[in-house]
Amino acid sequence: MALTFNQLHTTPGGGRRAQLHLPHHIVETPVFMPVGTAGTVKAVPQDTLESLGAQIILGNTYHLYLRPGHEPIRRMGGLHRFISWPRAMLTDSGGFQVFSLSELRKVTDEGVRFRSHLDGSSHFFTPEHSMDVQIALGADIAMAFDECTEYPADRTRAEESLRLTMAWAQRSLTHFRAHQHEVPWTNELVGEPRVSPQKLENGGPTQSLFGIVQGGMYRDLRRESAERLVEMDFDGYAIGGLSVGEPRDLTLEMISEVLPLLPKDKPRYVMGVGYPDEIEQYARMGVDMMDCVLPTRAARHGLLFTSEGRITIKNKQFAEDQGPPDPNCDCMVCRRYSRAYLRHLMQAGEALSGTLNSIHNLAYYLGTMRKVRQSLQVAGAPISS
Amino acid sequence: MALTFNQLHTTPGGGRRAQLHLPHHIVETPVFMPVGTAGTVKAVPQDTLESLGAQIILGNTYHLYLRPGHEPIRRMGGLHRFISWPRAMLTDSGGFQVFSLSELRKVTDEGVRFRSHLDGSSHFFTPEHSMDVQIALGADIAMAFDECTEYPADRTRAEESLRLTMAWAQRSLTHFRAHQHEVPWTNELVGEPRVSPQKLENGGPTQSLFGIVQGGMYRDLRRESAERLVEMDFDGYAIGGLSVGEPRDLTLEMISEVLPLLPKDKPRYVMGVGYPDEIEQYARMGVDMMDCVLPTRAARHGLLFTSEGRITIKNKQFAEDQGPPDPNCDCMVCRRYSRAYLRHLMQAGEALSGTLNSIHNLAYYLGTMRKVRQSLQVAGAPISS
Repeated sequence: MALTFNQLHTTPGGGRRAQLHLPHHIVETPVFMPVGTAGTVKAVPQDTLESLGAQIILGNTYHLYLRPGHEPIRRMGGLHRFISWPRAMLTDSGGFQVFSLSELRKVTDEGVRFRSHLDGSSHFFTPEHSMDVQIALGADIAMAFDECTEYPADRTRAEESLRLTMAWAQRSLTHFRAHQHEVPWTNELVGEPRVSPQKLENGGPTQSLFGIVQGGMYRDLRRESAERLVEMDFDGYAIGGLSVGEPRDLTLEMISEVLPLLPKDKPRYVMGVGYPDEIEQYARMGVDMMDCVLPTRAARHGLLFTSEGRITIKNKQFAEDQGPPDPNCDCMVCRRYSRAYLRHLMQAGEALSGTLNSIHNLAYYLGTMRKVRQSLQVAGAPISS
Repeated sequence: MALTFNQLHTTPGGGRRAQLHLPHHIVETPVFMPVGTAGTVKAVPQDTLESLGAQIILGNTYHLYLRPGHEPIRRMGGLHRFISWPRAMLTDSGGFQVFSLSELRKVTDEGVRFRSHLDGSSHFFTPEHSMDVQIALGADIAMAFDECTEYPADRTRAEESLRLTMAWAQRSLTHFRAHQHEVPWTNELVGEPRVSPQKLENGGPTQSLFGIVQGGMYRDLRRESAERLVEMDFDGYAIGGLSVGEPRDLTLEMISEVLPLLPKDKPRYVMGVGYPDEIEQYARMGVDMMDCVLPTRAARHGLLFTSEGRITIKNKQFAEDQGPPDPNCDCMVCRRYSRAYLRHLMQAGEALSGTLNSIHNLAYYLGTMRKVRQSLQVAGAPISS
């Protein structure tokens, strides 16, 4: 028994308000997922993430595989227990970061050989190995091993990349289904109310696997990718290879092309997006899940998202500004600290700067999605289940 | 009206359990004061410090004077409001850091000329200027401008340094008394229960000024220093120039020499100490206040203080250790995270490492003093007031 996806309301625009039942948490969707690269959402303690209302966070397979290693994490009961995060988690496949971070990489039909960005050591990742690593990590949702097509990519390159991704998707799924019972917390009651009784009746909770739609910026390749993945029957579907440098209208075009092809009764996830107005827009179109490093990465560089637009907190204009970062925000940072203080922390290179800026930006992103959910609930028609 | 020092219990060994009434907080003593160098206890949010039970924290005049500057802080209502810290604060005089951090310094009877470690700009600090800066910052307790005698120092050097420190102490006190009404929050009701009604009757709360006993490692110079400062009549007394590299029995000897000479009815503060067993030892001898960067600085380097001794969390032996950092500690870190996770955060260079390690070490220091207070209360004889 993997996930259950209960739709509560839908809107004429395609937006849907739903509950995604995962082994460790019932996630209210649409949802924004903070990125916890190496087993930590950078600079933010887990209890603060809980207070902020984070329901599901990401872990990066590439990083965790290299350090501390998936085997130690498996022996310690999985990623949830290792980092002490009781709610839901999702791991990427490692593919994206193998391609973007590792120094040397060689792609064959079998898999990818690459060198660690940490120590130059040589590693070989196949779809099967990615599944083994992700099962050891034990996130609620694992992702198929894919090749993320760069932008721009000509048609031949995009076709070849898609061919690889589709073959790897099938191998990922086959291996995952054969081994998903090996998850470190299988048959373990994770704790109420995280596990619904119906899950236990069905043999205890297991991980879910999502397929990833690729195809570059070619609508027909995107369609082909989506249709073939749907045929394979994943637990959910992601749209990958976006936010890789393309103009935003192209991002939107690809999402619009793919969404109608995905099964209505399964969650849909757009990977690596985006700005606050983007995540709101996609959520209203029917995207259920999104993740992005933007709120936390921008925070560490002093870029704050506010109801009045983006501000660069390091600017001199804020030196004696005693107002909160965002006058319309009631997060723990805006309730307590001034722009002047946040500017000072940044100027002084203080660690607290990254923490407070990240907390505010995450509050802004999570609050944005909370409002979207409320508005979908009001605007939408209830689904009779 | 500056401070009130109410002793509750004393022990035959000289230890005293008291309440130090300051404008922003009633501090239970003996107390350990975390160091908030540049307006932040490094890597620890203010609400966490409150949860940990921190009653009074330090700010460093040298750092805050250079960045963001005492004038902006004064215009924003003082340091408490600037950093959003409602409890008590203490600022050092800037002297120690001028001597240890600035690149070029020239000492005359008038004051010290030095270059900023940030941009090489030239600055001149006198006792009067240090008072002006500290009044602008508006901590509950300010410190006289002194010259911290290095170790080792020969007798001639220690005598000369003491001569300067005593002259500067008198100038500090004279200037402070003439200007202490200029504190940014004077005549302002800081908020209950921080200000006792009796303070308001006496013309509203003001800062207090402590003199600093110097004299190197020479008992007679220490005695002379203490006696002359007591004659000047400060609000409290500090023992400075310790923990500068001397052996620990010499530190203890100097403290033992000075303590009996200080007025029983005023708080006594030993600056810049120490290890957990040291602060406990000195507190039992009658020291009321101590501060040290050790718990937070050591934390950032992965050194944790525990009931079972010090541990270097980065050590390989902790790679799969699922126990809490300290099995006898109930701090928010020990309740939630494992040694293996803290080791991983440190290995990965994650910001959360410094935060969690610092929280635990501060909990250990503050907990140590809490236990000392309890034991003084049990062992001590009540003072009839």
